[in-house]
Amino acid sequence: MTRLRLNADMGESLGPWVMGRDSELMPHVDLANVACGFHASDPDTIRATVRLAVAHGVTVGAHPAYPDLVGFGRRSLACSPEEVENLLLYQLGALAGICRAEGAPLGYVKPHGALYNDMMRDPEMLAAVMRAVAAYDPKLPLMVMATRDNAPAQRLAEHHGLTLWFEAFADRAYDGQGRLVSRREPGAVHHDPALIVEQARRIARGEPLAASDGSELVLEAETLCVHGDNPESIAAVVAIRQALNAL
Amino acid sequence: MTRLRLNADMGESLGPWVMGRDSELMPHVDLANVACGFHASDPDTIRATVRLAVAHGVTVGAHPAYPDLVGFGRRSLACSPEEVENLLLYQLGALAGICRAEGAPLGYVKPHGALYNDMMRDPEMLAAVMRAVAAYDPKLPLMVMATRDNAPAQRLAEHHGLTLWFEAFADRAYDGQGRLVSRREPGAVHHDPALIVEQARRIARGEPLAASDGSELVLEAETLCVHGDNPESIAAVVAIRQALNAL
Amino acid sequence: MTRLRLNADMGESLGPWVMGRDSELMPHVDLANVACGFHASDPDTIRATVRLAVAHGVTVGAHPAYPDLVGFGRRSLACSPEEVENLLLYQLGALAGICRAEGAPLGYVKPHGALYNDMMRDPEMLAAVMRAVAAYDPKLPLMVMATRDNAPAQRLAEHHGLTLWFEAFADRAYDGQGRLVSRREPGAVHHDPALIVEQARRIARGEPLAASDGSELVLEAETLCVHGDNPESIAAVVAIRQALNAL
Amino acid sequence: MTRLRLNADMGESLGPWVMGRDSELMPHVDLANVACGFHASDPDTIRATVRLAVAHGVTVGAHPAYPDLVGFGRRSLACSPEEVENLLLYQLGALAGICRAEGAPLGYVKPHGALYNDMMRDPEMLAAVMRAVAAYDPKLPLMVMATRDNAPAQRLAEHHGLTLWFEAFADRAYDGQGRLVSRREPGAVHHDPALIVEQARRIARGEPLAASDGSELVLEAETLCVHGDNPESIAAVVAIRQALNAL
Repeated sequence: MTRLRLNADMGESLGPWVMGRDSELMPHVDLANVACGFHASDPDTIRATVRLAVAHGVTVGAHPAYPDLVGFGRRSLACSPEEVENLLLYQLGALAGICRAEGAPLGYVKPHGALYNDMMRDPEMLAAVMRAVAAYDPKLPLMVMATRDNAPAQRLAEHHGLTLWFEAFADRAYDGQGRLVSRREPGAVHHDPALIVEQARRIARGEPLAASDGSELVLEAETLCVHGDNPESIAAVVAIRQALNAL
Repeated sequence: MTRLRLNADMGESLGPWVMGRDSELMPHVDLANVACGFHASDPDTIRATVRLAVAHGVTVGAHPAYPDLVGFGRRSLACSPEEVENLLLYQLGALAGICRAEGAPLGYVKPHGALYNDMMRDPEMLAAVMRAVAAYDPKLPLMVMATRDNAPAQRLAEHHGLTLWFEAFADRAYDGQGRLVSRREPGAVHHDPALIVEQARRIARGEPLAASDGSELVLEAETLCVHGDNPESIAAVVAIRQALNAL
Repeated sequence: MTRLRLNADMGESLGPWVMGRDSELMPHVDLANVACGFHASDPDTIRATVRLAVAHGVTVGAHPAYPDLVGFGRRSLACSPEEVENLLLYQLGALAGICRAEGAPLGYVKPHGALYNDMMRDPEMLAAVMRAVAAYDPKLPLMVMATRDNAPAQRLAEHHGLTLWFEAFADRAYDGQGRLVSRREPGAVHHDPALIVEQARRIARGEPLAASDGSELVLEAETLCVHGDNPESIAAVVAIRQALNAL
Repeated sequence: MTRLRLNADMGESLGPWVMGRDSELMPHVDLANVACGFHASDPDTIRATVRLAVAHGVTVGAHPAYPDLVGFGRRSLACSPEEVENLLLYQLGALAGICRAEGAPLGYVKPHGALYNDMMRDPEMLAAVMRAVAAYDPKLPLMVMATRDNAPAQRLAEHHGLTLWFEAFADRAYDGQGRLVSRREPGAVHHDPALIVEQARRIARGEPLAASDGSELVLEAETLCVHGDNPESIAAVVAIRQALNAL
């Protein structure tokens, strides 16, 4: 059984505005998805975040997004596949430029927000993302969402010569297809720490989750997405980490 | 005698706005200073510009700037040395990210506009620029302005383990210290093609120019800055090229 | 018969980048749709454009857009209705602020690009636009596209206490519903000046056009959208103006 | 004796990033300096801030700045006087546009950060600011810093037909000329609540402060600048308010 690694969004402050508790969260994760300046972050914030990741031995990943600070990259922008490809290359490079100054190699790519959702919904967008990563460095893994059937994404990745890292969520309910239940639905987000830890444990062991339609759902995932917005979420990360270590 | 190479600003279009006649100018230069998105350009423009440079065997250099599209990077922004260092790393990386997709190595760095002027005026800023380039890749030459005495900049570069490329101008008058005469002064810009070509020839041969204070000025330069804004300036570039080839 | 007024996009330069031949076009139009800084323009460009409009007795209208300079406001951004309402208020006010310094009242509102298209396609977006205009100043007409049936838009405008100005196009083919034929289709854009002038004349007189499905299409329009990108389009505007004057 | 009104910066959040405790602070101030989108804020944040001000009967003022989100408008940008004039008009109008939707008149203007400092240091910049306010609405008071001698600013304002509101600080030390002691100096910022309240009381009564050079300094001020960054600063505002009410 592969170890399930913890990934979290980091470096989402901007100029004087602070977001996230990066310094509290960093010791507990394996992978830091670092914002690249299009939905959040700026060169100084990126530098500080990469330095923090290096200090904790955390792998730095690129977290590129649509260019939309005010909307935090959560609003879909009708870009062409070529535009997506190029804005990814730009952001991967920008982050990597700062990584060089801190001696940190760029470790993987995880698109952010609406770009992530669009990529999961639209194979043409996923192909554009893959072209960008492959053109930048085909050895860089691309993080995508684990669903009931990872095979289509896997096949596309093989076509582009890429490795995928599938990610799952311990604090979200899944529907029968292995998609996240919309936050507008009741029960979409788990708040009970015990439930979150149990879901993390099941994902790590390859055991089925109960999907919202009553079916059993097995997610094959290399990594679990965690959050550090507030003390409760950081406590949850620590609990997940302990549970995974104890497996 | 080293060959005097021609450098020109390129990729300064932005989204739908066209600036410069890059495709006409590219065949005649050696070095393309490609805007990195802070004063001009965007990921798609950068991609097209790098592709054009590659097609003509032109070396791609980074042309980073203060973040100021409306002011085109020509207005000084009171950044700290650390901010300058980080915004350079970000822009070098961003351009290099797109270069990777076109198989073009990043060849050198030339700061743009107000950042270039601030660097030439303020040794603390020049040191910040050098720290950024050295942290990114110490083998990357930094382009700075040739003046009457290149030694101070040279010493600072040696301290940072960097190579400098000194640049001169064929179409501008120099003062006694080897600084450009302000555009607000009469005679600051040469318009006579013969005069421009003659100044290029003298710089290439290491022969003295007549400075505005009547003194003789010898500029030691590796590269000459040329422009492609209009048909006249492109004709001047062609004439300079022919004159240099005939040396 | 109401006089058919000519409207054109203006003030779409940005910092050093020039777009459009505003000074050549301004003498020939009635209504200047002035960009508000989100898809194009900046405070200095707006000021110069408003001054030019005033000098020619042209009415200044606001041309607000999604915040997207690189995409020139042509890419849809998934904003909520509240976001659209507020970004309109901001842009109307910003333009009006500069208008005050030139003694020019704000005369009307015409959304730009993807925002215009989204508003024509989605009644919820149209309602958001109308709420913004009504909140800003219900006496400000809103320009929308004339279609085969203006009644639904008219009813929504009455509900918001607004006046609509319907606009038509002389250089574009229409489909049977009175929508513009996509530019990707052959024959979507008229290039023959005689055809353009004839279509303008028919619209002005309320005579039917031949829609792309062979049906007759009568457009009720107060204004005709014209362009000033190049000498040909300006010549077409002059020809349209003469034809309309001769009616 | 005129009542000393309390002003505070408000609406400095941006998209998802929260700054300041506006809802806690608003009940205790008279004047809200609302960011206009260039150094902070966005149309939705402005709308919510204006609504909050209206709910508490607080006067809305414009807090325009240089265009620099990452630097929060604290870095001077070398704009020409004309550029300053136009970016002020744009921002005043933008805020006023949203104010119209909330039925709140724009009440005054206070430039932010580096623009405020540049205006206080450079009479040419102060004149540009005054031209903008006068062109927008000469009845709109302009807030500037009270110094030992308000007369020069007063004369310039009279020349432009403007009213000035002089502001003072209860939590900052002053030098002999009535300028703020730099934050880099020891003792520049008062932290003792009793000292802050006492300084506020003295300013309100027109009693002298002890300047850093030992001289007595009388500041003539209409308003006091207060802050709402943290619970301590809000407690200080409440204490100042009570002390002023008890005068």
